[in-house]
Amino acid sequence: MNAPTATQHLLPEINQREVPAALIEALKARFGEQCSTAQAVREQHGRDESSFEVPPPAAVVFAETTADVADVLRLASQYETPVIPFGAGSSLEGHLLAVQGGISLDVSRMNQVLSINAEDLTVTVQPGITRKQLNEEIKSTGLFFPIDPGADASIGGMTATRASGTNAVRYGTMRENVLALEVVTASGDVIRTGTRAKKSSAGYDLTRLMVGSEGTLGVITEITVRLYPLPEAVSAAICSFPSIEAAVRTTIQTIQLGVPIARVELIDHNTVRMVNAYAKLGLREEPLLLMEFHGSPTSVKEQAETVQEIASEFGGNAFEWASTPEERTRLWTARHNAYFAAVQSRPGCKAISTDTCVPISRLADCLLDSVAETDASGIPYFLVGHVGDGNFHFGYLINPEDPKERETAEALNHKLVTRALELEGTCTGEHGVGLHKMGFLVDETGAGAVDMMRTIKRALDPKNILNPGKIFAL
Amino acid sequence: MNAPTATQHLLPEINQREVPAALIEALKARFGEQCSTAQAVREQHGRDESSFEVPPPAAVVFAETTADVADVLRLASQYETPVIPFGAGSSLEGHLLAVQGGISLDVSRMNQVLSINAEDLTVTVQPGITRKQLNEEIKSTGLFFPIDPGADASIGGMTATRASGTNAVRYGTMRENVLALEVVTASGDVIRTGTRAKKSSAGYDLTRLMVGSEGTLGVITEITVRLYPLPEAVSAAICSFPSIEAAVRTTIQTIQLGVPIARVELIDHNTVRMVNAYAKLGLREEPLLLMEFHGSPTSVKEQAETVQEIASEFGGNAFEWASTPEERTRLWTARHNAYFAAVQSRPGCKAISTDTCVPISRLADCLLDSVAETDASGIPYFLVGHVGDGNFHFGYLINPEDPKERETAEALNHKLVTRALELEGTCTGEHGVGLHKMGFLVDETGAGAVDMMRTIKRALDPKNILNPGKIFAL
Repeated sequence: MNAPTATQHLLPEINQREVPAALIEALKARFGEQCSTAQAVREQHGRDESSFEVPPPAAVVFAETTADVADVLRLASQYETPVIPFGAGSSLEGHLLAVQGGISLDVSRMNQVLSINAEDLTVTVQPGITRKQLNEEIKSTGLFFPIDPGADASIGGMTATRASGTNAVRYGTMRENVLALEVVTASGDVIRTGTRAKKSSAGYDLTRLMVGSEGTLGVITEITVRLYPLPEAVSAAICSFPSIEAAVRTTIQTIQLGVPIARVELIDHNTVRMVNAYAKLGLREEPLLLMEFHGSPTSVKEQAETVQEIASEFGGNAFEWASTPEERTRLWTARHNAYFAAVQSRPGCKAISTDTCVPISRLADCLLDSVAETDASGIPYFLVGHVGDGNFHFGYLINPEDPKERETAEALNHKLVTRALELEGTCTGEHGVGLHKMGFLVDETGAGAVDMMRTIKRALDPKNILNPGKIFAL
Repeated sequence: MNAPTATQHLLPEINQREVPAALIEALKARFGEQCSTAQAVREQHGRDESSFEVPPPAAVVFAETTADVADVLRLASQYETPVIPFGAGSSLEGHLLAVQGGISLDVSRMNQVLSINAEDLTVTVQPGITRKQLNEEIKSTGLFFPIDPGADASIGGMTATRASGTNAVRYGTMRENVLALEVVTASGDVIRTGTRAKKSSAGYDLTRLMVGSEGTLGVITEITVRLYPLPEAVSAAICSFPSIEAAVRTTIQTIQLGVPIARVELIDHNTVRMVNAYAKLGLREEPLLLMEFHGSPTSVKEQAETVQEIASEFGGNAFEWASTPEERTRLWTARHNAYFAAVQSRPGCKAISTDTCVPISRLADCLLDSVAETDASGIPYFLVGHVGDGNFHFGYLINPEDPKERETAEALNHKLVTRALELEGTCTGEHGVGLHKMGFLVDETGAGAVDMMRTIKRALDPKNILNPGKIFAL
């Protein structure tokens, strides 16, 4: 494992290529009102939820069809100019930032459900639809799309970053739930990967290659995903624990016993305090687990009983149960507001989010040492985790004007990732590499594997126009 | 969909490159007894379960370490000579055949369990270990590896073909169950893909790219797979039906209701007759479903009751239950012996196996028309299916000396695949493309996607030495 230099994990390298005026003219000629160079529009497409400051793209094209996307890529290829796909703008790792300049390709208007196949538990959508909108539109089928990264991200963006979040512990991530894609290549050709068959051995798994490629191998224009029957019974509970360790040990044992729990989320006492202040929830300001059980009434009952037994062994007693959708929503408010509650707790701050994921047996080792380090640093933070998957997030709440705070936060993240890798984990469970984790990617997988990724990138995007400067330097 | 010419789906193109004597000498110098050019050894490595006749490889190297594999590839690269990885030899699609000549790289001696992480439900193995050997070696942990393609295939081969089989309906395929790999590249470099973390967004999914690449992108030398707790309760049943349609409709409704059935296998009346003759099982010679339920005692009971209700709606009543391992083994004998029973039913015959998989709602349409066609053809056949996944296999039992029978069988397969693709399915659910489905792959995914696969192949294997002539012509 080649130790990265601290700078590899700090500010991104910005090296914006000149965007030819002729390309802007060609885009305006082709797209008219769909192409904007207005400062406000460019700036809105030049930032995401990361803490980086990068000059905005030269123009924004609002694609409405696959043909629009193909034409943008043909023109961008002709003028060798970068294209950055834009969905909901909720990236946490700088995926949307124009570090090499170029055009933002906004697909948010491509937000239709194209076909629902309820009898096969699949739906095909355009990339701009968000997960909440999707679930709204399929409500009448009695099916749902489980993947919930917290933000109301676009399905295209979730595919591009291999997103997961709550529910993944039972239903898997985008890796397991995307069946097929339509993709526009760097040269503007439209290809299809996969079919609606549940499984296939037909050639290279281009679907999984595109899932998680962060816009660097193609622009996703259609996505077929799996749906699931709404569970017959759903039951949710909050349980407070005397310590983070008690909550984590409860989670580890639940997973190791094979309880098919649908959600198990950790929120530490700091974060509970922030959420109480933000949303007046009046929760006990102790570390807590938010749990949800799906299944038949009897299996939900079985699961809940097993977990209650485990929790009580570790001193977790105060179970608060919610069975109606309204009560569940109230409990989940705590989890879904954590990020915003935390950012509001320190006006003007930026959150630097970590995203390690380790084998479940290593979760306590990885998490507890990092809590101690972070407490000692004096940097305010929040801590939430999809702990059933061994995945958790510190959010370091830094003053963006204070380089020392950023240095401290990055140093904490560096220690955390190094620890996670030593414990056979990954530097990013669900946020992606983006600009922020390039050095860590090399630490994790080795130079040889990253060279293989580069070779694939060069072969599929010889002019390096697809979201360049992300995942690895090129 | 460009219609393929019939010949695209017939005998493979054989174009064996000259293997330089200097390479053979170098291999013998490096490997001594581990390198054999004996006719019998070459012939044993020059055939698989497919019906093709191809001259054997020029030599066989028995690798015992990753370093052995790396040295073979460095030498093969130096002499630009094909290398064909060999595990258990159970391929059905000609994956092992030396259509462009070269060296067989036998990894069957690399059959160790390298590390068991019971608390994380993972195990890391060498590629030559077979699935039965693996389950034998982890028995004491209370965990099991569910993927069961029928044959006692090697884990390396199952990874390379993205295998699945029975149990996939509940536990997924190799795509979902391989966490990480060690791979030797065409140039002899050793890379690692993935970690033991359950999920990751760290860069391109090289693991999934290698899974199903049929030995054309690298040689797999280590595999980390998921394990599952042995279910608390297991219950298996055979149910006979008045017609194939009744059995299929029962399956479709079971899946659509979201019953987490572990196995649901169709065996048609022809095949039951063959199995009775072969193994004296005395089963009712009617279409039957073999089912298995895993879970807690109550959930197994729930599942079984639901399926019995559905089955009786379709006239399936004669349920024969098995709860002890011995009784279960007896029932599963029918399924596991189907292939051999069928081949023995026509002495000297070769089985040409089909492998389509369609969305579950299309299963009846796809299967029943093909049954009618095949009955009309007069070619004897067997029919089994992992019908819970929409995947089934006809085995056309042809006289290999009679080109007309092969033509007829290939024509039936051609009709079947064309139908499956029209129904949004795939030409291969689990066997892989190999030599036999190259034309169908183009029909299924389109020339653009296959060109992308070729581009990746050329980039990662510029000398085209890794199992060349498989998946697509190159």
